[in-house]
Amino acid sequence: MLEVTEKIKPCVRELRAYALTPERAAVKLNQNENPWDAPERIKQESLRRLQARSWSRYPDFVPASLHARLAEFAGWQPEGIIAGNGSNELIQALLMVTIGEGKRVLICEPTFALYRQIAIVLGGEVASVPLDAGLKYDVAAVREKMHTIEPDVTILCAPNNPTGCGIDAPELVSLLENTGGLVAVDEAYFEFAARTVAPLLERHKNLVVFRTFSKAMGLAALRVGYLMAAPEIARETAKAVLPYNLNAVSQTIAEVALELYESELLPQVTRIIAERQRLYAGLQTIEGLEAVRSEANFMVVRSRIKPCLVFEELLRRDILIRDVSGYPLLQDYFRVSVGTPGENDLLVTALQEIFA
Amino acid sequence: MLEVTEKIKPCVRELRAYALTPERAAVKLNQNENPWDAPERIKQESLRRLQARSWSRYPDFVPASLHARLAEFAGWQPEGIIAGNGSNELIQALLMVTIGEGKRVLICEPTFALYRQIAIVLGGEVASVPLDAGLKYDVAAVREKMHTIEPDVTILCAPNNPTGCGIDAPELVSLLENTGGLVAVDEAYFEFAARTVAPLLERHKNLVVFRTFSKAMGLAALRVGYLMAAPEIARETAKAVLPYNLNAVSQTIAEVALELYESELLPQVTRIIAERQRLYAGLQTIEGLEAVRSEANFMVVRSRIKPCLVFEELLRRDILIRDVSGYPLLQDYFRVSVGTPGENDLLVTALQEIFA
Repeated sequence: MLEVTEKIKPCVRELRAYALTPERAAVKLNQNENPWDAPERIKQESLRRLQARSWSRYPDFVPASLHARLAEFAGWQPEGIIAGNGSNELIQALLMVTIGEGKRVLICEPTFALYRQIAIVLGGEVASVPLDAGLKYDVAAVREKMHTIEPDVTILCAPNNPTGCGIDAPELVSLLENTGGLVAVDEAYFEFAARTVAPLLERHKNLVVFRTFSKAMGLAALRVGYLMAAPEIARETAKAVLPYNLNAVSQTIAEVALELYESELLPQVTRIIAERQRLYAGLQTIEGLEAVRSEANFMVVRSRIKPCLVFEELLRRDILIRDVSGYPLLQDYFRVSVGTPGENDLLVTALQEIFA
Repeated sequence: MLEVTEKIKPCVRELRAYALTPERAAVKLNQNENPWDAPERIKQESLRRLQARSWSRYPDFVPASLHARLAEFAGWQPEGIIAGNGSNELIQALLMVTIGEGKRVLICEPTFALYRQIAIVLGGEVASVPLDAGLKYDVAAVREKMHTIEPDVTILCAPNNPTGCGIDAPELVSLLENTGGLVAVDEAYFEFAARTVAPLLERHKNLVVFRTFSKAMGLAALRVGYLMAAPEIARETAKAVLPYNLNAVSQTIAEVALELYESELLPQVTRIIAERQRLYAGLQTIEGLEAVRSEANFMVVRSRIKPCLVFEELLRRDILIRDVSGYPLLQDYFRVSVGTPGENDLLVTALQEIFA
């Protein structure tokens, strides 16, 4: 008899699972989260609305009230917006409606591992352009590769996870105009860069932008993300988005967060940006470390000591970071999220000890 | 210049979106929900745990504590369980790792529309066997079709939405042993049938079972479902499940619901089963209606008056049902969920008026 896994597609069987060993520590700087809990006003108002709602009834088929608030927040038309169970779900949906056997996805590496993973599960081919020596986007090389392989979808993360590099609007336009395919820009961290490519949506119908509530919005536990695109692209992508994909609780809390963004969350973002600068300066004083400037709420750091050893030493001191040495180009690097001022001080002090 | 939707796969472009017109009514019998809100003890304990948790931190990479509770609840090994954002997400994941161009999915119709939708988005071919004249599974015809087309995945919904028919274990075994493919059984409504095919998992490694918290568990707003399968199938399917797919709130509430199932939810299930019998009897007294016996918390009803007119007349009386006349074989039918005793009385009285 055949093995039962024979029925699994070979492209899946050959794939290594995307996994993260669960580690715990008092200072958690490994997942680029907002280091502060959601503000009390957001929690209280959310819990009040939740208590009042029936839990046994389905959420809205399409979360129209959230779409309307997102449209206002992001300055894009509601017909071109889809909210989902984290931006990952929407990246997957876009690839489901575009990618299959014989289809090509172009990415730049190192980047967020999930783009490659999803494309391969769907039977697509993945081509990759390395970042340049400064760990920035090599836009000329991407344009060149677009000519060679004619990708159906190109995915850029800006600011890029894990390197923190962004992309300038004119360069992105040169890519949008250089391809017959779609260009997806994952803006999970755009609030920390204080810039966005969203204004390009108006003129470039092959641009798709992804955003999340898991970083600046402080709601990683809730899993909310959204997609912005031309309405005709949103309409087709929606066919791969499952009905009731966004639970009613997360929808409600996301609405509250948007209502209170200016007063409650924007001040946190401002503090994180200031802390990023302070953390960068602190790390640069340590001999054996070379931090890389970042537009996000994290940065990669080149280390004289093997990243896996730094990881272990920090974990012994109850600080959790991310060893990214398995990523292309990053064999000598680890990644740290920007924490609270106190957490960043603890990190710098611990690294001073380790590198003394 | 090419239309931007040229980059969308033709199988998707040709697909009509799965949609539901949002209608509201005081008596909502159109989505097979538990008619009672989640019990107050479940709500209070859930809100207490939520308040205590940080919302800015990611949920568990794998919701191990929920998997452990599900394993105990369902009598299956945790390594063979995946919890997700509704069972739909897990059905999609199973099809993502098995279906692509040239792959075949076998379903019986009428059934839940999403199986066909997902298979087609993934580029698969869908073959369908009609239910028999009594709206029951025609198992001999399914076996026959299995020989002809050799499906990679066969999907059965038991009890079936929208007809309420179940499948006997010996018949399911005859299918499991008759195919080289996987057989997925969607048990969204199994609690109301008081029977399950889960004990067959032990001997039949090609069986995959899906369940949900949206029906008997009274948590449709929260979107929680789970898959049970041989550990090797679960491991491969997990490669198409996005990290952090289940938000922390829904995970927490699902755990509370499992802890309090016997005392808080099982009595609701018992009442719904009793109400199903009472509603069936009430409908049978109305000339021009012929209700179909169901193992679920809903039933289809054959109607002398056009289903769309019955729908309109009931909506005028603030009662929402589902017009299923667009489904194969069901041109003369509507579907009603079993509501609270009061809601069922209102429905029967309204139908008596309409058919008087």
